[in-house]
Amino acid sequence: MATQALASWAISLNASAIPPSVKSAAIRSLYNYIGCTIGGSKHPTVTKAHEALSPFFGRETSSLLGHQGKSRTDAQHAALLNGIASHVHDYDDTHLATIIHPTGPIASAVLAYAEYQGGVSGESILCALVAGIETSCKIGLAVWPEHYDIGWHITSTTGSVGAAVAVGKLMNLSQDQMQQAIGTAAVQVVGLREMFGSDTKSFHPGRAAQSGFLAALLAEKGYTSSDKALEAKRGWANVVAGGGTPKLDHYVSELGHKWEIEANAFKPFPCGIVCHPAIDGCIQLHKDMTDGGRKAQDIRKVEARVHPLVIELTSKRTPKDGLEGKFSVFHGGAVGLLCGKAGPAEYDDKVVTDSRVIELRDKIDATSDESLGADETYLTVHLADGSKIEKHVKHAVGSLEVPMTDNQLTEKFVDQAALVLGPNGARAASDAAWRIGEADDVASVLRAL
Amino acid sequence: MATQALASWAISLNASAIPPSVKSAAIRSLYNYIGCTIGGSKHPTVTKAHEALSPFFGRETSSLLGHQGKSRTDAQHAALLNGIASHVHDYDDTHLATIIHPTGPIASAVLAYAEYQGGVSGESILCALVAGIETSCKIGLAVWPEHYDIGWHITSTTGSVGAAVAVGKLMNLSQDQMQQAIGTAAVQVVGLREMFGSDTKSFHPGRAAQSGFLAALLAEKGYTSSDKALEAKRGWANVVAGGGTPKLDHYVSELGHKWEIEANAFKPFPCGIVCHPAIDGCIQLHKDMTDGGRKAQDIRKVEARVHPLVIELTSKRTPKDGLEGKFSVFHGGAVGLLCGKAGPAEYDDKVVTDSRVIELRDKIDATSDESLGADETYLTVHLADGSKIEKHVKHAVGSLEVPMTDNQLTEKFVDQAALVLGPNGARAASDAAWRIGEADDVASVLRAL
Repeated sequence: MATQALASWAISLNASAIPPSVKSAAIRSLYNYIGCTIGGSKHPTVTKAHEALSPFFGRETSSLLGHQGKSRTDAQHAALLNGIASHVHDYDDTHLATIIHPTGPIASAVLAYAEYQGGVSGESILCALVAGIETSCKIGLAVWPEHYDIGWHITSTTGSVGAAVAVGKLMNLSQDQMQQAIGTAAVQVVGLREMFGSDTKSFHPGRAAQSGFLAALLAEKGYTSSDKALEAKRGWANVVAGGGTPKLDHYVSELGHKWEIEANAFKPFPCGIVCHPAIDGCIQLHKDMTDGGRKAQDIRKVEARVHPLVIELTSKRTPKDGLEGKFSVFHGGAVGLLCGKAGPAEYDDKVVTDSRVIELRDKIDATSDESLGADETYLTVHLADGSKIEKHVKHAVGSLEVPMTDNQLTEKFVDQAALVLGPNGARAASDAAWRIGEADDVASVLRAL
Repeated sequence: MATQALASWAISLNASAIPPSVKSAAIRSLYNYIGCTIGGSKHPTVTKAHEALSPFFGRETSSLLGHQGKSRTDAQHAALLNGIASHVHDYDDTHLATIIHPTGPIASAVLAYAEYQGGVSGESILCALVAGIETSCKIGLAVWPEHYDIGWHITSTTGSVGAAVAVGKLMNLSQDQMQQAIGTAAVQVVGLREMFGSDTKSFHPGRAAQSGFLAALLAEKGYTSSDKALEAKRGWANVVAGGGTPKLDHYVSELGHKWEIEANAFKPFPCGIVCHPAIDGCIQLHKDMTDGGRKAQDIRKVEARVHPLVIELTSKRTPKDGLEGKFSVFHGGAVGLLCGKAGPAEYDDKVVTDSRVIELRDKIDATSDESLGADETYLTVHLADGSKIEKHVKHAVGSLEVPMTDNQLTEKFVDQAALVLGPNGARAASDAAWRIGEADDVASVLRAL
C-alpha cells in the first residue's frame, strides 16, 4: 500500500495547506540549491559532462543556472547538468537523519520541467519541491541505515522517486499515473558510494533528477509500471534494503504529519562538517576581537579542544592548495580568525598559500576531547599582551539547533555565486532567488539566473 | 582487479582474432535483434515512450528501426527506443545460464552510436557487440542467481555495463577511459522484476542501452569514476549481489577463453518457453502429415505428454485473444498442426478466435509427466481412420542442443518484420540485416531498415 498511499498523499497536497514553517524550509532549500548550482556551474566536472552531451541537446527550453551566453538546453539535459552542478562542491543541503542531500535531484527536475512547460508559478514549485523532498526522505528513512551501509548513495537512489513525484505533481498526474511514475522512477537505482571522490559522485543526483523526470513524462502518456513498486516482494525497498527490513508503511504514514524538510540543514562552510564548530568559533572570535579593537597580528597562540573526528579527518598541518585546505581545521580556523569568514573564496589556492594565513595557521593547536559533542568546541585565543579570549561553541552554525539564518544563507549564496557571476550579478541572483516562490511564472526568474 | 582486467580485455579484443563460431553467433544475435526490434517498433509501449520523449529529441542522426517516415532521432533517444522495441514482445535472445537477454541493451547503444559517428564498419560493430555481450554475461554470472532471485532484472542491470564497454570499444577508449566508463555505467542499476507484465519491463533494456552509452560518452571526455567500480567493497557486485558472494574474478578470467555469446539462444515462438517442445512437435507433425497427404481435418485426437511446468503455466483451454493464446499450449499446438508455424501472425487475435483453430485446439489433451526434460515432449496424433502418428521431441528447437538454423531465424525475422514493413519490405530488411557485418559503414544499412 505504500506506493498507493504515497501517490495519494502527493496528488492531494495543496500549496495553501502547507504549514508556514514548511514553506519557509522549502524557500530556504530552493534558495540554497540555486546558490550551490550557480557556484558549481563552472566546475570541471560540469564542463566535461556538458562537452560530452552537447551533441545530443534538444530544443533549448531550460536554463543551465550560472551559465551566461549559451545558457539553455533541453529540459532533460538541464535537469542532469544542474543536478551535477548542485552537488559538485559538496556544499548542498543535508537531511541529517539520512544524510540525503534532497534538493538537488528534485529541484533540478522541477525547474527544468517548469521552464519547458511555462506558466508554472513559484507557489506550485514550492509545493512540488515539498512533495518530492518528503518522498525522498521518507523512503530513505524506510531503508536507512542498511541501504547506505551496503554502499548505495542514498541521495540519488531516493532522489529519482522524489523527482518523479515532484514533476508528476506539476503535471497534475492522476492517482494511477502518479503510481506508475513512482514505479518507473523506482527501477532506476543510481549511485554507489564507491564513486565518492570522483566526477561520478555528482553525476548521481543529476541522473536521479533526469530519471525521475523521465518517469513522470512516461506516466503522463500512460506508460505502466506497478502499483506496488515500492513495497512488493521484488520491489524497490526489499531489493535495495541491503539486508535490512524496510519500514515503508511506518514512514509513509507520517507524510503530512512529520515534515522532513524542516530537518533539512545547510552547510555554512565548503569543507567537511567535522571542522565546522572550530571555524564557527573562530569567526565569532574575529568579531569579538574586531569589536574590541584587536587584530589577528595580536594573536600569540590559539588552543582548540575538538571532537576526536576533527583530528582524525581534518588535521592537515600544511595544506598546499584549496582542496587540501578543506581537510585542515588549522586553515579553516586561520581564515575564520583573519577574514571573519570561510567561504569558497577563502579556500582558493592563493589564500591557502598566503603568508599571513600560514603564519596564523601555525599558531593554532588542536587537541582531541572525547567528552565533546560532534558539533561542539572550546577555543582559547592567547594574545600578545598576555590576555586571552575564550569561546565555547555548543552547537556549530548549520546544525539543527543553530540553523543558518537567512542572512547567513544569503552570504553563502553571494560568496559562491560571485565567483561565477561577479559581485553585482551574484547579489541580483540572490535577490531573484529569494523571491522565486512569489513568481507567477518561474521561467522568467530562471532566465535571469 | 576485475574492472581493470575487463577493461584491458575489451580494449585489446581484435576483430580478426575472434573465432569464427563466435563471429557467427554475433551475426545471428545481431540479426535476431534487428528482427525483434522492427517487430516491436509499433507496439503501444514504444509508441507511448516515443510520444512522451519526442519533445526532447536532439539532432536526428540515428534510426529508429522499423519506423518509416520520421524515422530518426538523436543517438541517445534512439538507443532508448530501439532498446524498448527489442524486448517488448519477449521474443529476443536468451543467455540461458543467466536468462540475460544480452543483445538488446548493447546493440541498441552500439548501432545508435555508430550511425551518429559515421564510418563505423560492420566488423567493428560485431567486435563491439561481442565485447559487450561477454561483459554483460560474465558479470551476470558473477552475481547469479542471488542477484536475480532478490528481484533485479538482470538483463538491464548488466546491460548498462555491457553497453558502455561496447560503445567504448567503438570509441577506442584508452584503458583508463574504459575503466571510468565501466564505473559510470555500473552506478546506473536499472530494472526490477516487479515490473514484469508492464511497459516498464521493456524500458529496462532501453534505459540500460542509454545509460551505458552515456557512461562511454562521459569517459571519453575524461569523466572519472573508480578503477574498482565492479569489485570494490561498495562497488557494483557487492552492492547488487543480493546476499550472494560475487565471483567476479573467476568469470572475468574466463574472458576470451569461454565465450558466452556461443551459449546465446533464440526463441522460435513468441510465447513462454515451456510450451515450445509441444509446438515444435506439432509443426513437425504438420510436415509429416502434409508429406503423407493428410490434412488437419483428419485428426480425431491429439495426446501430449509434457513437463509439469507446461500444465502449470500454459494450460489456458479457451484463450480469448492473442495475449491469452501465449499462455495456451493448446492454441500453440493447434496452429502448429494447422498452419505448420507459430509466429507472431499465429498469435493474432483473429487467429486465436478462428473456428478451425478452436475446433482443433479442443481435440488436444495434455498430461503432465515428471520424467520428461523441460524441453522434451511426446505427442500422438490419432487420425479418423484409426491410424496414429507419434513424435518424440527430445530437445525443442531453440535450445542449445537444437539451435535455430539460419533459415529458421530468417523465417522468424520475416514473419515479425512483415507485420510492420509488409512482406517485401521484410524480406529486403532481412537480406540487409544478414549482411550488416560486411558493411563498410553500417549507417547506410541502418537507414535502409
